[in-house]
Amino acid sequence: MRAKVTVYPRREILDPQGKAIRNALRRGGFVEVAEVRAGKSFEIEIDATSEAAARECLERMCEQLLSNPIVEDYELELGSAPE
Amino acid sequence: MRAKVTVYPRREILDPQGKAIRNALRRGGFVEVAEVRAGKSFEIEIDATSEAAARECLERMCEQLLSNPIVEDYELELGSAPE
Repeated sequence: MRAKVTVYPRREILDPQGKAIRNALRRGGFVEVAEVRAGKSFEIEIDATSEAAARECLERMCEQLLSNPIVEDYELELGSAPE
Repeated sequence: MRAKVTVYPRREILDPQGKAIRNALRRGGFVEVAEVRAGKSFEIEIDATSEAAARECLERMCEQLLSNPIVEDYELELGSAPE
């Protein structure tokens, strides 16, 4: 089963990297860009018998290793077969 | 308009960061993890009159600044209103 995990700085936390990217884009001529948040993305191939089992395992991974819950939020998207 | 851009190393390119994360997860007890690809994620708030205009602008951004097309692929997801 394939899953996509996205980890972002929490909304209430300053995101200097996102701000720097926003400014670089605007300087590069993309003045339409209002705001950028910069995060990490993990595409994970996981052996699980059910979607519920995969989700439970991914949530533990996110909380223990992939994100820092004090300053980051994560999102899970579960797909099915690999391409 | 809100968009989400994900930038990953191309499939045919080695991803040592993803491999290191996979190994760390497995050492941490998550033996269900078969493979990890590590990428970057950008959540972008963009002022555009239409979805087509936003997509065109985002594609140029990805090709010029957010990704390195030689070794990376990108994915665009266009949402609508910010939360």
